[in-house]
Amino acid sequence: MLRTHTCGELRISDVNKEVTLTGWVQRLRDKGSLLWVDLRDRYGITQLFLEEGKTDPALLQAARSAGREYVLKAKGTVVERLSKNDKMPTGDVEIRVTSIEVLNTSKTPPFTIEDNTDGGDDLRMKYRYLDLRRNVVRESLQLRHKMAQQTRIYLDSLNFIEVETPVLIKSTPEGARDFVVPSRMNPGEFYALPQSPQTFKQLLMVSGFDRYYQIVKCFRDEDLRADRQPEFTQIDCEMAFITQEDILYTFEGLVRHLFKNVKGIDMPSVPHMSYDDAMKYYGSDKPDTRFEMKFVELNDITQGKGFQVFDSAELVVGICAKGCAEYTRKQLDELTEYVKKPQIGAKGLVYVQCKADGTFKSSVDKFYSADDLKTWAEKFNAQPGDLIFVLSGDADKTRKALNELRLKMGDALGLRDKNKFAALWVIDFPLLEWSEDTNRWHAMHHPFTSPKPEDMKLLESDPGKVRANAYDMVINGTEVGGGSIRIHDRATQQLMFSKLGFSDEEAKKQFGFLMEAFEYGAPPHGGIAFGFDRLCSLFGGADSIRDFIAFPKNNAGRDVMIDTPSTISQEQLTELNILVKEIKK
Amino acid sequence: MLRTHTCGELRISDVNKEVTLTGWVQRLRDKGSLLWVDLRDRYGITQLFLEEGKTDPALLQAARSAGREYVLKAKGTVVERLSKNDKMPTGDVEIRVTSIEVLNTSKTPPFTIEDNTDGGDDLRMKYRYLDLRRNVVRESLQLRHKMAQQTRIYLDSLNFIEVETPVLIKSTPEGARDFVVPSRMNPGEFYALPQSPQTFKQLLMVSGFDRYYQIVKCFRDEDLRADRQPEFTQIDCEMAFITQEDILYTFEGLVRHLFKNVKGIDMPSVPHMSYDDAMKYYGSDKPDTRFEMKFVELNDITQGKGFQVFDSAELVVGICAKGCAEYTRKQLDELTEYVKKPQIGAKGLVYVQCKADGTFKSSVDKFYSADDLKTWAEKFNAQPGDLIFVLSGDADKTRKALNELRLKMGDALGLRDKNKFAALWVIDFPLLEWSEDTNRWHAMHHPFTSPKPEDMKLLESDPGKVRANAYDMVINGTEVGGGSIRIHDRATQQLMFSKLGFSDEEAKKQFGFLMEAFEYGAPPHGGIAFGFDRLCSLFGGADSIRDFIAFPKNNAGRDVMIDTPSTISQEQLTELNILVKEIKK
Repeated sequence: MLRTHTCGELRISDVNKEVTLTGWVQRLRDKGSLLWVDLRDRYGITQLFLEEGKTDPALLQAARSAGREYVLKAKGTVVERLSKNDKMPTGDVEIRVTSIEVLNTSKTPPFTIEDNTDGGDDLRMKYRYLDLRRNVVRESLQLRHKMAQQTRIYLDSLNFIEVETPVLIKSTPEGARDFVVPSRMNPGEFYALPQSPQTFKQLLMVSGFDRYYQIVKCFRDEDLRADRQPEFTQIDCEMAFITQEDILYTFEGLVRHLFKNVKGIDMPSVPHMSYDDAMKYYGSDKPDTRFEMKFVELNDITQGKGFQVFDSAELVVGICAKGCAEYTRKQLDELTEYVKKPQIGAKGLVYVQCKADGTFKSSVDKFYSADDLKTWAEKFNAQPGDLIFVLSGDADKTRKALNELRLKMGDALGLRDKNKFAALWVIDFPLLEWSEDTNRWHAMHHPFTSPKPEDMKLLESDPGKVRANAYDMVINGTEVGGGSIRIHDRATQQLMFSKLGFSDEEAKKQFGFLMEAFEYGAPPHGGIAFGFDRLCSLFGGADSIRDFIAFPKNNAGRDVMIDTPSTISQEQLTELNILVKEIKK
Repeated sequence: MLRTHTCGELRISDVNKEVTLTGWVQRLRDKGSLLWVDLRDRYGITQLFLEEGKTDPALLQAARSAGREYVLKAKGTVVERLSKNDKMPTGDVEIRVTSIEVLNTSKTPPFTIEDNTDGGDDLRMKYRYLDLRRNVVRESLQLRHKMAQQTRIYLDSLNFIEVETPVLIKSTPEGARDFVVPSRMNPGEFYALPQSPQTFKQLLMVSGFDRYYQIVKCFRDEDLRADRQPEFTQIDCEMAFITQEDILYTFEGLVRHLFKNVKGIDMPSVPHMSYDDAMKYYGSDKPDTRFEMKFVELNDITQGKGFQVFDSAELVVGICAKGCAEYTRKQLDELTEYVKKPQIGAKGLVYVQCKADGTFKSSVDKFYSADDLKTWAEKFNAQPGDLIFVLSGDADKTRKALNELRLKMGDALGLRDKNKFAALWVIDFPLLEWSEDTNRWHAMHHPFTSPKPEDMKLLESDPGKVRANAYDMVINGTEVGGGSIRIHDRATQQLMFSKLGFSDEEAKKQFGFLMEAFEYGAPPHGGIAFGFDRLCSLFGGADSIRDFIAFPKNNAGRDVMIDTPSTISQEQLTELNILVKEIKK
């Protein structure tokens, strides 16, 4: 090594040692006769020290000429600092430098290499290799490494085998859009990049691998909303000879292991909630259970009192915000405007202020007596000082809107602390959902998910009512993982494809190999996949996944650092037997 | 779990326990009144036992109807076997069955699920999920899992961080052919799949990550020779602030760690050999050093004696095969035919038999006296009973041919035992090699490899003589890994690109981001990549990598199980803005 020590390891006990450090110039302070250089590497910062008169002038000159981000190799003696810095682990010592070698120079970086950088997003993405020098970004990727390590330790301990599944697979139209790869050796044919290793992990169960996992890149060619990436990473798992309870138990174990070993947090066992209850009480299939503020349905006590808005509503439903009774007119107006935004979609907001003196003040006093409002309050278990919000209308839309309001109030009341974690299993998802776009049923999870046996009889008569053996792990209102018990016999799989509008021929062309595999002794099996990027950002307390990915792409799917995608040569196109169509401007 | 125990864990100490096992029917032996079923899972085989008269007839019937590879759930009591089988860990016990549930039936598999299967390669590939049930294949993948685990344990212990680099990157013409991915959002533009994460790992060094690794899929669209796959896996590593010696030491450590922890083998420290010596003494840059049989050059003692073939040869070189003096005429003729095959390319084979009585018999007795041959023998340190082979001609071609003969003789003499391992560092590779095809210099390793500073002066005058700071790890004659110290300054990198025939514009378009990164304080760095598939097959003592990959592709790049590559829809092509050219039949 060019160094004897890293910039993070010298302590007072190392005083008098002759050392060689390498790293980057973080800062240079030149007081004329005294010169300090903060030398940085991945492990920390150590202060170098040079004194006029006691140091070779050429050496001083070399140190003075070193700008920010120069790469230095410095030899010297560890000495105790006069003024110690207890904010850094190496703060008790400095290096009295005896020689300096400039290993490389640096142009002035386009933004500061500091936790709070002055660089905007675009600049940081273009110079990602400089952005990665910042502690916050590097630490995010170190956290990711630790998450992967601990995931493997946990799953290895349970006899899971990590198996690599292929990246060049087959395009299938079900689900999201595939990225495809033209095959040169098979002209006119294409591979697809996997949206998940779903069929392969199921085949591994058919093969008797019993317990499989993989931390694996997956790909979706979707229009990128904020914080979505065309390539992303999953913790992908599958088990055979299990029930749903076994999966929930095993992977709740994984999440608790990660919290314990990465964050030092003892997470309690994870409660289960049915999809129906999640929708009823939180208006979302991924409720944030860091805080209560559950929905209370009010149809029975609000309808038939002459308030047309409620009377005509499919659902009247509300939440109670603790201690908010004294919200001002302005605050209430703002919230009303908020729920009326097109993306929230409510028509208006009814509120009831439960005054400290036991009286009530509401926006619907005209229709409801004090006694009426008292009944409402009782239903919410509202106390004096609380504020009740009520929305009404079409059930699905109203729940969706109230979910948004609940989350906004959770934020307002500081109930969504990033350092608190609440996990939840949402279970019993519907098997199918109707798409108005395509005018057919779609698999809510995917076509391989097993219906609940007791609901099979509804598949013909009332497909929307069929529940699946499917489950999501939700943490702090974010879906971090999801999975299901799979179909493992050909007949059910074929029935499922036909319900999803596949012709027999299409089903056979795309998934014939899987259905055939089911005829050779497929065991009962099921699994789960966690969104690893998201899980890491959640553990890191960040809103965005971007800094948990070393080289992310922007919202146009571009890597602006390497400037790709890009054109390829005519020779490449010819070899691949494809043409690019003229691009309409 | 549907089971209480696996099929591999019950022992004599479990007798009298009530257990439930799940697994596949390996074999059914029906002796009329007695019925045995061997139930198999990933963990082993346990014998089930049913006795007419003592078992419910319906149960017997159920067991009898179960064919090979049926999936069963069997309950029963662990009992001691009357006739024990000490070849299997569970061989002391069997299960007296009290209930059987058929979890799934199976068609008769197209080949037997046995170590020595009757299935040919094509059938095994088509039904890979059944092939994976065979112990030998599953154990190969378990070995791979263990190799990956131990690799991570070793590298983690040395502060390496695993960082995922992107799969959708930029196409660059240098090196092998890229697989490309059309970008829907950027019409007319393409991503490429990485042939290696080379530039990204170098950028991580520029970022100060200091020590990086990744077990990562890479892609090459090459015509597939036997045992090459379009997607393959690398252990990819990079370190900063190091010398070549640090890399060799660190990764020799990895290989020794793997031998110790995966195979239980204490491997001695790995010798270094220069590329020049490897070529001179073994005629190969990946010599198999499990055995000696080094090349001996004979120009000085063989030329000028009137034997025109030797006199006109650039090189006269031979090997000595211990104890082969009594090879028959037929054997010698066969070896002569072997070296004359076009792919070996020798013109003929000269031999000297060192007889037990101290006399010599050679195919060139006409030209060389007994004393001459004695001099030869001394040069080889040949003993009575040994056989000397000599080839001659153009130096490069002759070395290449003699290398083949040496390996063949190694095989013949049993010197290439798959359970013996000899590792070697080959160092000081040439930086450049001349390509007759393209009429220009190519990078022997890749364009980012650093020339040896002391050879830089030759770059203009004699480019072929410039040595690189590049190294390969060779085990048993197979290159398992290779790497180099990298260029880390813009000027040298630019010079290198220009030597390789890049225009400034091309270099900038393709690698501008890297050269720009070098201007912001790039540290000295270097790295290595191991071919993980190959390394696993070597550890597994196998010739082919295929069974160390769960779902390999065939030599036409096809996955015959899922039947891909395949056509995609017109809608997909339209969205991607490409056309498939009409295919000429």
